[in-house]
Amino acid sequence: MKHSHRTFWAALLAAALLAFSLAPAHAKAPKARQATSELYQVGVIDALLAGAYGGSQTLGTLRGHGTLGLGTFDGLDGEMVVLDGVVYQVPFDGVVRRPAMGVTTPFAQVVRFRPEGAASLPAASNLKALEAALDAAITAKVGDLSRFAAVRLDADFASLTARSVPRQSPPFRPLAEVAKGQAVFRFEDVRGTLVGLRGPDFVRGLGVPGWHWHFLTQDRTRGGHVLDCTLASGAEVSAPFQTLRAMSLHLPKSGLSGMDLGRDRAGELKAVESSK
Amino acid sequence: MKHSHRTFWAALLAAALLAFSLAPAHAKAPKARQATSELYQVGVIDALLAGAYGGSQTLGTLRGHGTLGLGTFDGLDGEMVVLDGVVYQVPFDGVVRRPAMGVTTPFAQVVRFRPEGAASLPAASNLKALEAALDAAITAKVGDLSRFAAVRLDADFASLTARSVPRQSPPFRPLAEVAKGQAVFRFEDVRGTLVGLRGPDFVRGLGVPGWHWHFLTQDRTRGGHVLDCTLASGAEVSAPFQTLRAMSLHLPKSGLSGMDLGRDRAGELKAVESSK
Repeated sequence: MKHSHRTFWAALLAAALLAFSLAPAHAKAPKARQATSELYQVGVIDALLAGAYGGSQTLGTLRGHGTLGLGTFDGLDGEMVVLDGVVYQVPFDGVVRRPAMGVTTPFAQVVRFRPEGAASLPAASNLKALEAALDAAITAKVGDLSRFAAVRLDADFASLTARSVPRQSPPFRPLAEVAKGQAVFRFEDVRGTLVGLRGPDFVRGLGVPGWHWHFLTQDRTRGGHVLDCTLASGAEVSAPFQTLRAMSLHLPKSGLSGMDLGRDRAGELKAVESSK
Repeated sequence: MKHSHRTFWAALLAAALLAFSLAPAHAKAPKARQATSELYQVGVIDALLAGAYGGSQTLGTLRGHGTLGLGTFDGLDGEMVVLDGVVYQVPFDGVVRRPAMGVTTPFAQVVRFRPEGAASLPAASNLKALEAALDAAITAKVGDLSRFAAVRLDADFASLTARSVPRQSPPFRPLAEVAKGQAVFRFEDVRGTLVGLRGPDFVRGLGVPGWHWHFLTQDRTRGGHVLDCTLASGAEVSAPFQTLRAMSLHLPKSGLSGMDLGRDRAGELKAVESSK
């Protein structure tokens, strides 16, 4: 009986120790995290526009905060597409690769994608029509466009124009200048996936107001930042979307010294986002 | 032995169940939370300027995210000061009260205040000089002013001007109009605490760029949004501050329908913040 008692107390002690060691972590955090969907953002768009291309967070860390998203890489080394938790890089040559998780990003936005609805997009829609249909679907669902939103669109496109940017070395020039040397990729009759994020108007300066689109072909070998597209004629397409009432912003540890963050760069952003 | 075996396996099962029940919560969250200091923000400043005074988060929830901060209340019912984790309300009559935790806020910013340095503020400084000294101390510490910052200043003031705003009922008028009917409180030779938060330039539209100050007298009976102040002559004052590389934004569930969030309200914000 002495042995069995010892065994009993040892097991009980083990249980108590286990409870003690795990208890401090039992802080509602996972529950809260599931309840609130957030847009997780690394960096500030105005700093990127000003030329802050040095990465501040690893892809490994970024990937822990979302499964769907957009961004760029240290040194502005191409366009980032995050899809199903995988980080894809579309460099200047347009040939997609899978970067190492130790690579860093100066600007990226990801969400844990859990669609809450789907928008029906008319066949043959161009990018503008597609955005209008999404805005209408989101407004119908949540009342207005004051939330952040994420969408994933797997579709056939009659045409799609995408671009990527050349990797930069210090001293960095502003993005509006760099983007003038962008590589443009024109696709016809292509199947693939659009990843879109939408910021409310009030994020200007900090994030991207309106929609921002990146693309990957279905075989994940080509893609880029989307300048325009037209859905294939034929059937409507369904685009699952999610709205987000929270955003978290993560600034570089090294600061943004020397960056002029005071002036309005809305015009520059528009030029960078959509110039063909 | 049969009994002791059963006891042993029961204890082991208990340990395993305990481990299983606690393990999902063991997700590094509390550690990460301690590592990253964030500015926690409810609402959007441009929406508040436009008249979005309906509260969207309870003070009870807000208090869980910070110990020091600023804000206002549902219906614009006065100025909020969060100090040592206590939420104080400075209503239109200037007499401080402690609101119930079920009261809501349309706009508030709080931090878990853990000072990382202190700024020496010259005696007899006015608000502008005090802000310049803080900016210099923060720049010396972290390199630039691209982070968020929080400061607490317990001091004697030769003079201090504060204000509060009258509670509003729908339909709500823009804040710049409402603030014209503000109550102004002039203090002389008063001891008390300033709570200050600083937003980087790029938060315009979303948060408050530059410093934003609220005040409570030492006995916590009077206070308000600070329009100006002058430190007592005599000795320098030490102001503990903290910089923050992360911000989280929490939008109202009800949306911000009908609010014009597209235009630049920087001028309105300046008028609302500092008009005497």
